[in-house]
Amino acid sequence: MNLPAPATAKGAHTRDMLLGRACELAARVGLEGVSIGELANAAGMSKSGVFAHFGSREDLVRQTLEWAAAGFTDQVLVPALRRPRGLPRLQAVIEGWMDWILAHPDGCVFLGAISEYDGRPGPMREFVTELMERWRGVVETAVRKAVEEGHLRPGTDPKLLAFELHGLMYGLHHVRLHDPQAPDLARRALHDLFDRYRADAGPATPPR
Amino acid sequence: MNLPAPATAKGAHTRDMLLGRACELAARVGLEGVSIGELANAAGMSKSGVFAHFGSREDLVRQTLEWAAAGFTDQVLVPALRRPRGLPRLQAVIEGWMDWILAHPDGCVFLGAISEYDGRPGPMREFVTELMERWRGVVETAVRKAVEEGHLRPGTDPKLLAFELHGLMYGLHHVRLHDPQAPDLARRALHDLFDRYRADAGPATPPR
Repeated sequence: MNLPAPATAKGAHTRDMLLGRACELAARVGLEGVSIGELANAAGMSKSGVFAHFGSREDLVRQTLEWAAAGFTDQVLVPALRRPRGLPRLQAVIEGWMDWILAHPDGCVFLGAISEYDGRPGPMREFVTELMERWRGVVETAVRKAVEEGHLRPGTDPKLLAFELHGLMYGLHHVRLHDPQAPDLARRALHDLFDRYRADAGPATPPR
Repeated sequence: MNLPAPATAKGAHTRDMLLGRACELAARVGLEGVSIGELANAAGMSKSGVFAHFGSREDLVRQTLEWAAAGFTDQVLVPALRRPRGLPRLQAVIEGWMDWILAHPDGCVFLGAISEYDGRPGPMREFVTELMERWRGVVETAVRKAVEEGHLRPGTDPKLLAFELHGLMYGLHHVRLHDPQAPDLARRALHDLFDRYRADAGPATPPR
């Protein structure tokens, strides 16, 4: 469905700017609020100018989510991959995720997309589901390597720890709306959770 | 802004039916998709018939959320209050919450509302925030009582445990979209979390 990407550097730059605006719009009003017309307004361009970059509204919405996912990978995953394999890398993944949540106080385009599409079966729901599944797989793999490196207890279930980590990040995302202490609580909960799974942990200390 | 509620039993029944439909609509397409016209369509009524019950779209949206919150209280909190004070009551609150999430596979009207309004300051965001804050307070109080009853370790921070419990429930809500094992993972994580905070816990066992 995608039109070929514009061949010129200027075209690529405009497309990038438009997708950035579309992401901001989506965080504020949801992906369903992103349309060629709204985006033209937000970017101060003509509708036909926007239309030259995106073949249809569906194409625009999907590309917005893909663009956001690429940004998330660049900001969260790529820096973590530079850290030593095992627990340091897993912790860097989660810290990067936390920074990313805190850098988007108006809401998260991915969690917004889940809420928007969970009740609407179709290609967008499948795409959102696929993105979430892919990210869950990244976290699970990072947990698995941390066990293999001997940093986390043998017998740790990567699916369970990945679920618990997702829970804390989703908790942070939602609770920060009414509680400025949410980041501090998330950090303490993360610390306790890693402590509980750490291979060199003695008898666990009570949570602070 | 609310019109006086209809004085007749039939009127109250119709209003109740309409709010139920509005909730289903909100879970599917979001609260912003709930309008007098859409609701009239969904309920097979005339727009003026719906309008007689709700003075405006804003009024309808707010009442929908209030109605959902009353249902949540009835189904989750009221049964839990019949359980003995302390850990049994806290566990009943969380199990009821979990049942409620699983009973709404098309999405949760409250989490949908957070995602819809987190980027839009105004009275609806304030109202959503207030509802979340109130629920967080209920969970915190239940934790506090469980500590007072001697069921959870002295020194347990109710804010921290309430945050962790919120995280697991939000995790369940989002992860179930792509993983049918999510309820099982949430149950295991809850079990481990309560175990860690339990007053009679010996040296903690590694998570399963």
